[in-house]
Amino acid sequence: MIVNGEHYRTVWFDKGIVKMIDQTKLPFSFEVYECRNYKETSEAIRNMVVRGAPAIGAAAAFAMAQAFLEKTDIEKAKKYIEDTRPTAQNLFYAVNRVYECGPEEAHKIADESIVECEMIGQNGEVLIKSGDYIETHCNAGWLACVDWGTATAPIYKASRNGKKVFVYVDETRPRSQGARLTAWEMKNEKIPHAIIPDNAGAYYMSKGKVDMVIVGADRIAKNGDTANKIGTLEKAIAAKEFGVPFYVAAPLSTVDIKCNTGEDIPIEERNQAEVLYQEGPDDKGIVHKILVSSPGSAAKNPAFDVTPAKFITGIITEKGIVKPDEIKDIM
Amino acid sequence: MIVNGEHYRTVWFDKGIVKMIDQTKLPFSFEVYECRNYKETSEAIRNMVVRGAPAIGAAAAFAMAQAFLEKTDIEKAKKYIEDTRPTAQNLFYAVNRVYECGPEEAHKIADESIVECEMIGQNGEVLIKSGDYIETHCNAGWLACVDWGTATAPIYKASRNGKKVFVYVDETRPRSQGARLTAWEMKNEKIPHAIIPDNAGAYYMSKGKVDMVIVGADRIAKNGDTANKIGTLEKAIAAKEFGVPFYVAAPLSTVDIKCNTGEDIPIEERNQAEVLYQEGPDDKGIVHKILVSSPGSAAKNPAFDVTPAKFITGIITEKGIVKPDEIKDIM
Repeated sequence: MIVNGEHYRTVWFDKGIVKMIDQTKLPFSFEVYECRNYKETSEAIRNMVVRGAPAIGAAAAFAMAQAFLEKTDIEKAKKYIEDTRPTAQNLFYAVNRVYECGPEEAHKIADESIVECEMIGQNGEVLIKSGDYIETHCNAGWLACVDWGTATAPIYKASRNGKKVFVYVDETRPRSQGARLTAWEMKNEKIPHAIIPDNAGAYYMSKGKVDMVIVGADRIAKNGDTANKIGTLEKAIAAKEFGVPFYVAAPLSTVDIKCNTGEDIPIEERNQAEVLYQEGPDDKGIVHKILVSSPGSAAKNPAFDVTPAKFITGIITEKGIVKPDEIKDIM
Repeated sequence: MIVNGEHYRTVWFDKGIVKMIDQTKLPFSFEVYECRNYKETSEAIRNMVVRGAPAIGAAAAFAMAQAFLEKTDIEKAKKYIEDTRPTAQNLFYAVNRVYECGPEEAHKIADESIVECEMIGQNGEVLIKSGDYIETHCNAGWLACVDWGTATAPIYKASRNGKKVFVYVDETRPRSQGARLTAWEMKNEKIPHAIIPDNAGAYYMSKGKVDMVIVGADRIAKNGDTANKIGTLEKAIAAKEFGVPFYVAAPLSTVDIKCNTGEDIPIEERNQAEVLYQEGPDDKGIVHKILVSSPGSAAKNPAFDVTPAKFITGIITEKGIVKPDEIKDIM
């Protein structure tokens, strides 16, 4: 994608250094973050400098490549990288591929990811009519991938093909990836959009103002149950209630055939500070971390939830659009 | 309720001055805000210095009493007060009562509200078993009323009767009344609780960790459809999906018999800045207003949504608990 006139991938490998767009600084500042070894890359994954399942996969692949180049204990390094985030299947997929095939495989994974996402865009674009209002949750955009995005790829393809679309961008508390990252991507792509509180999705659906929901995925079970950012489940239930088609967009590397159902997918519980505090710039551009809750109260912060297959209209993959229960058949 | 050892109402009338706990300052600072005339009281309602349907009703009643005492054009004053917030039925109910009966009626409305809320507490308390996990949305606590609260009243009664309860407090973006006000009330009442992102409600329901949802109401139509804080609809749909009882707690003054269904209830659209910015103190206690979204993106900010009666298990009123479609029969 183009940022300030230059083409960027979200994460890339440059002479042993893993470089990535620092997503903790966006949209207020565009900075490239550099990781000199596999441990630094792992910390960047853990701290969400890079986030989004396919981008985590690519970063983890590069971390494994670094571990090989460092000639360190490769079993230990593999475990270290895998321990950063428990839910995104792409992380385990990518780490295993590099573990089995060697460091050069990391480049293949990143390059393939771009092709897969573009195919998701082409396959999903046919679902979108000019004039459609599309809701998306969190950021399953190009920042969550190496390029193109998953949920956003059909939207970008539709827009570039001249279809008029409007995107409802769920804020996506607690880390506000929608308000911060997806809105920033939409502005870059000049796609009309509005940020809405996570609370407002069902309201717009009930008014007939949402034609379709498209979200990404962190892990898809064999039966089509899908783990994605916390709040996806509520949107899916509401979409079913109001007859709004609900699509998941993800490469097949997101499918974990060892998980029979969503029950088997581990859900990451993150630090409560992400809920209790917020960071951002004041009107002079000075960034502050402020308390946005009652002092002394605790918070809970589950990072993902599982949407049962029955709420999912279809899964948009690089091999086409399938019903959730057919996902196992195209692997 | 007791704050720092002293008993407070949320809003009261003192020698022609309407005094209220400043809810834009809570929970970071406890201040009493004074309104010297009906226009100042109206602005305080508009700017949510006082908020919550029953508290808005009491404040509006006092504003009307001020208008009488100011010997101003009473028709004009009535319209001015009514124009502050369009959704809360209690505002129109209270303004009309004082308009018809004179300024002394305002005190009666405030006193009655306390009795009604305590009755709601007594009537609703029987639904709660010791060990229950209860989710609530927004603040329908004593800060939203003159005392006791609506949704919180059964919880406070249960807790004071020795029942052990745990409250999931929905953050309630964009104004975070849950995280800021309900959490503060729960801490004052020493009730175990956790703030959760609005996105997490369905997740906890899907895990069987929510025994009951109780929310307040801003306006209830004749058929039981209920307007309440944006996001209530999503919780209600999710609760139905997971078989979690979903209760609305409200005095009968919240019922607008002139609205046949929720379709007739006007929904307030508030300023997008409430979504795009957040305010709170840094670790030195200095309050900052920060941008929490991508610069240049717009937001939408519907303040309420309507939950159809079919999602509501029962409405807890001062006259007992009724099915939504029975609400008209106990008026």
